Amino acid sequence: MVESTRIVLASRPAGAPTPENFRIETAEIPAPAEGEVLLRTLYLSLDPYMRGRMSSAKSYAEPVEVGAVMVGATVAEVLESRAPSVSKGDVVLAYSGWQTHDVAPAHGLRVLDPAKAPVSTALGVLGMPGFTAYAGLSRIGKPQPGETLVVAAATGAVGSTVGQIAKIKGARTVGIAGGPRKVAYLNEIGFDVAIDHRAPDFAEQLAAAVPDGIDIYFENVGGSVAEAVYPLLNNYARVPVCGLIANYNATGVPAGPDRLPAFYGRILTKSLTVRGFIQSEFVRELYPDFLREMGEWVAGGRVHYLEDVVHGLAAAPEAFIGMLEGRNFGKLVVRVAD
Amino acid sequence: MVESTRIVLASRPAGAPTPENFRIETAEIPAPAEGEVLLRTLYLSLDPYMRGRMSSAKSYAEPVEVGAVMVGATVAEVLESRAPSVSKGDVVLAYSGWQTHDVAPAHGLRVLDPAKAPVSTALGVLGMPGFTAYAGLSRIGKPQPGETLVVAAATGAVGSTVGQIAKIKGARTVGIAGGPRKVAYLNEIGFDVAIDHRAPDFAEQLAAAVPDGIDIYFENVGGSVAEAVYPLLNNYARVPVCGLIANYNATGVPAGPDRLPAFYGRILTKSLTVRGFIQSEFVRELYPDFLREMGEWVAGGRVHYLEDVVHGLAAAPEAFIGMLEGRNFGKLVVRVAD
Repeated sequence: MVESTRIVLASRPAGAPTPENFRIETAEIPAPAEGEVLLRTLYLSLDPYMRGRMSSAKSYAEPVEVGAVMVGATVAEVLESRAPSVSKGDVVLAYSGWQTHDVAPAHGLRVLDPAKAPVSTALGVLGMPGFTAYAGLSRIGKPQPGETLVVAAATGAVGSTVGQIAKIKGARTVGIAGGPRKVAYLNEIGFDVAIDHRAPDFAEQLAAAVPDGIDIYFENVGGSVAEAVYPLLNNYARVPVCGLIANYNATGVPAGPDRLPAFYGRILTKSLTVRGFIQSEFVRELYPDFLREMGEWVAGGRVHYLEDVVHGLAAAPEAFIGMLEGRNFGKLVVRVAD
Repeated sequence: MVESTRIVLASRPAGAPTPENFRIETAEIPAPAEGEVLLRTLYLSLDPYMRGRMSSAKSYAEPVEVGAVMVGATVAEVLESRAPSVSKGDVVLAYSGWQTHDVAPAHGLRVLDPAKAPVSTALGVLGMPGFTAYAGLSRIGKPQPGETLVVAAATGAVGSTVGQIAKIKGARTVGIAGGPRKVAYLNEIGFDVAIDHRAPDFAEQLAAAVPDGIDIYFENVGGSVAEAVYPLLNNYARVPVCGLIANYNATGVPAGPDRLPAFYGRILTKSLTVRGFIQSEFVRELYPDFLREMGEWVAGGRVHYLEDVVHGLAAAPEAFIGMLEGRNFGKLVVRVAD
């Protein structure tokens, strides 16, 4: 029997999650049955969507039950295989959640090639976040040469990829992030303009940065950034709504004034397209294209990525809480084992 | 010289327009120059978008200047022509506004065939409102067989056409209107369900009418109808935003709570498409198809239309004010001359 150390949802958060919402446990793992494999987690991905799974409200996915292991994508080593498609020693993309070991059916796993790219990129630029950027742009944002794209959380796994793909497509790119270090990084990786949303004159800086208005606003955050962006949208602008991290910890209905009529009116008068999406909608039609094209861009140095690696499963709750406050710098992953 | 009686914008309304915002005048019209025609207005179209033109805020079109003739589509008889494309006696679709006579360039006019359909339909089901319904459905709403469509202001020029086209496309149609007479009419023309939005249990009636949820909400009104519809939208639902008549007379920012975060969050979690549009965006690509297809549907009795005709230009302001309160019953037109 193998023992797995795991982090479970101890209680549902009211507002921002706290360490008390998580509990570390150990459990014995059964031996793999026919068609299954035994996995040892190497990397765990931490992503904003997990905040939604901690709440009882049904979203596009079922909530995590209290007492259950927190969900999450993982990169894992195969310790034992009872399936022909996967061999002992393979490194695979799995969805084991916040735990050190797991037994899983082999058919849901993708074997990674460590020679092509560091395996942790399967959780970031070459995985779900990268695909989110790729699909949201190609199916909704549709950047055209000379258009202006704005993205917030722009050093994050999704945002940085959005900006760089849009640049490859010929758009002018404006990245928004929190703090001078992040702004400097955006300039380094080729954003045309980088703006600190913490600046007191943020809205003025943004307006000055987009003399021709905004054609695409890739929405990761909502909140005060969205408030500054919407008045600058051009006719026929597209807003892929990918995340609203500013709202995830909200409790109750915010006080007035009611901004909905003005927002809705702007959709009408500017012929805006505001389209929510989850990457899974586009997996079937686009994932092979993504792996090929993004693989080339990353290998060729046209798309850069940044990982923020924390060490040890026990560090996951604090790292996750910090990510919701914007304290990570790049794609947040937990190095669970070497 | 011909004298034109005209209604000009006397002052900009604060909130709902009043008769004092309009003034009736007479003016002498110059003789038509080369390439121009002299027109006698037969019908004037009254449409909700005109409320927007009375305000100083620039929307998708320039506001009407104070003192200028109110804008509007017209059906007119050609009294005199100095252009080869149009003959004396022709009946044409023009954009003369709220006046009895006009001199206009011939190239912007469409000659109507009174044998094909009553000429007033060029202002309704076979004109801009009908095209709005046609384009919004074919390019944004995209009704599929078995899907459920909801439309409000459903006896109006746009709404009634939306419901009937969606029905032709195989969708289940739910029409919303104010009062028993309008509800009865919706049942007559083939809506699957018709609901009175003035009923105290309107939201419950709507929920009961859509057991499989709502796939398309064709937005004409906003306000409390939209409030009841949004929680019932299915994943991947489409919302062509064509009008927000409930907001047009609003002054200032409404009190809280702020409903925007919840609205925006629903776009994300349900992968909604909320898309504002003005029919002119689609004229080039779709208008010929529309004239052909809708002409067949109307001639074949598959699409019904209802006109609410008021008599005499002087009646236009009161009729327009009433329309913004939902007092019209069908496409509102003014019979300016026989």
